Amino acid sequence: MHILKLNLKKHSYSIIIGNNIINLLGRYILKLNIGRDAYVITNASIKKKHGRLLNNGLKQSGFNVRFKLIPDTEKSKSIEMASSIIKDMTLYDRGRRVLIIAFGGGVIGDLAGFIASIYKRGIPYTQVPTTLLAQVDSGIGGKTAVDLTQGKNLLGAFYQPRLVLSDVGLLKTLNIRQIQSGLAEVIKYGVIKDAEFFTYLEKNYQDILDLKMPALEFIVMRCSGIKAKIVQQDEREEKGIRTILNFGHTIGHAIEAAGRYKRYNHGQAIALGMLIACDISKKLGLTNNTTVERIENLIKKVGLPTKIEKISGPDIIKAHYRDKKFMGLKNKFVLIKGIGKAVIRKNIPLKIIKESIKIYLI
Amino acid sequence: MHILKLNLKKHSYSIIIGNNIINLLGRYILKLNIGRDAYVITNASIKKKHGRLLNNGLKQSGFNVRFKLIPDTEKSKSIEMASSIIKDMTLYDRGRRVLIIAFGGGVIGDLAGFIASIYKRGIPYTQVPTTLLAQVDSGIGGKTAVDLTQGKNLLGAFYQPRLVLSDVGLLKTLNIRQIQSGLAEVIKYGVIKDAEFFTYLEKNYQDILDLKMPALEFIVMRCSGIKAKIVQQDEREEKGIRTILNFGHTIGHAIEAAGRYKRYNHGQAIALGMLIACDISKKLGLTNNTTVERIENLIKKVGLPTKIEKISGPDIIKAHYRDKKFMGLKNKFVLIKGIGKAVIRKNIPLKIIKESIKIYLI
Repeated sequence: MHILKLNLKKHSYSIIIGNNIINLLGRYILKLNIGRDAYVITNASIKKKHGRLLNNGLKQSGFNVRFKLIPDTEKSKSIEMASSIIKDMTLYDRGRRVLIIAFGGGVIGDLAGFIASIYKRGIPYTQVPTTLLAQVDSGIGGKTAVDLTQGKNLLGAFYQPRLVLSDVGLLKTLNIRQIQSGLAEVIKYGVIKDAEFFTYLEKNYQDILDLKMPALEFIVMRCSGIKAKIVQQDEREEKGIRTILNFGHTIGHAIEAAGRYKRYNHGQAIALGMLIACDISKKLGLTNNTTVERIENLIKKVGLPTKIEKISGPDIIKAHYRDKKFMGLKNKFVLIKGIGKAVIRKNIPLKIIKESIKIYLI
Repeated sequence: MHILKLNLKKHSYSIIIGNNIINLLGRYILKLNIGRDAYVITNASIKKKHGRLLNNGLKQSGFNVRFKLIPDTEKSKSIEMASSIIKDMTLYDRGRRVLIIAFGGGVIGDLAGFIASIYKRGIPYTQVPTTLLAQVDSGIGGKTAVDLTQGKNLLGAFYQPRLVLSDVGLLKTLNIRQIQSGLAEVIKYGVIKDAEFFTYLEKNYQDILDLKMPALEFIVMRCSGIKAKIVQQDEREEKGIRTILNFGHTIGHAIEAAGRYKRYNHGQAIALGMLIACDISKKLGLTNNTTVERIENLIKKVGLPTKIEKISGPDIIKAHYRDKKFMGLKNKFVLIKGIGKAVIRKNIPLKIIKESIKIYLI
């Protein structure tokens, strides 16, 4: 078991990573002195697989536990769902101190964190991520959000959890597509920040796909460490440091949106977005062929896509421009100078972006 | 014109107070470099009275202005209204930087601040309060909120505005009931923190009721100064300092709720709540008759109620217990040792509370 610390002054918290450690959750929350009434937001499938373990772990430490099940779909990340959950929670919260436990993947984590941020001007919450993607990325760092029909993650807050507990044992029940989706973010960490880790992935990717320990535990630990270090330097993405975590996301989000969130899942779209960011880096003379080929090879080996199917270039560009409202009128790309070396560049000519997208279209 | 500074490190901001200064708003926002697209949340009656002035003041400094009118009722402080306003705002926010201007009383300020806090994980907003209550109290300090059917202000955030501009000239269009409602909070500041100011109010209350300058400008300035000083010491009400601003509010909120928010407006209920808190202070031997009589006299002179009509004692106690969920199972009262000297006491015996309420029932 490993305990990492994310230092944010009085909003600091621990990230606990280990195999079959979910039974320790109650003990760790107890230490925080944030109440005894746990309101667990999850979905039916996660509850069926791991609900008893979580419940026992909490009950043993004297917690009251209430499970709230929500549909397992991105559509659950809505203001209407948040509102309906809060109304249910007020019935449970009778003159006591309620804490929220986000027990699921990215959707549940984002939604539960958002609810915790606005209920009574903020109550404590804990992330217990159950997917690789959530353990290495979305569960850490306090970005909470719900979607609007006008755009994903349009409502939200920066609101840190009081604890993240990543039980890598839970990952063993994931299907290959879910593991691959998380792996896109794992590869991202290597590319932007950690060449040694990238080399580790090149050598050990098969162990990860086979859900073997200690490989799984190691990658969750290494990625959590990188993310924690970046977040504590730039919690609110104001200094251009946290920005590098968006590597592959600028065009990746556009591909996701152009495919109406059905054609590609998040990880697949990010993999394609990374390839395009690599090609732009090459065109701008920032990096060379060898580097880009290593990245492309690893993406291919883990089974992530390297070609964009059934989506047109103009549709991606259109979605990209809609997304740009999040950052003002100028575009901003995270590019690379080499494995482990990310740089930020603004105002990339549209012509170059279009050409780089074209290369990956079928 | 006076400029106060509320110091909260990187969330610091200015409170600008003056007579007929609304035309300066654009100039001050411009200095903050927070965009040129102003989305003004207000209601039809305020827009009719002061909309042109605000619009001109902003246009002269090169701002684009869009007015969003909402119904003039507490019911507007809902998550559904917030959601509908945000959807309208996304149509205005096309790849640009939008800033929100809350142009109204407490309802508009709380709602607009809440929207600013959650849209894109926080965008800048400015308070331009148009009621005495909002200028001296709710417009300052970053408490934003919407109501649920389960309780008032149940959803919200601590989220500071970038500027507060209080044009006391706007107060001249208020009716006497609105002025009185604000005066309850004004008197509160004297009682909890500033004996000299309390004496000033005893001498000059008629000028205030007559909406005379410089009296109006002076009280807004003095109260804003007290509030700013308290907020900068305890932004999130964690240290027991900001808590004293709740003087009169513990039972006041219960009276408001027991009267279904119709029998008494906020200021009237707070006036009654202050009287009951005074009586509890007396019963606990914290203060004497003379002090309590001075407070009661001032409340009476400005036309605020000193008797609770058509609400029963048990109904107030019931509402008080419902409200207690906000602070755990123990009650907590702000009491006084004398004019200008507030103290906090926990676990006041129910018997004493009941007796003190009884005294003011008709």
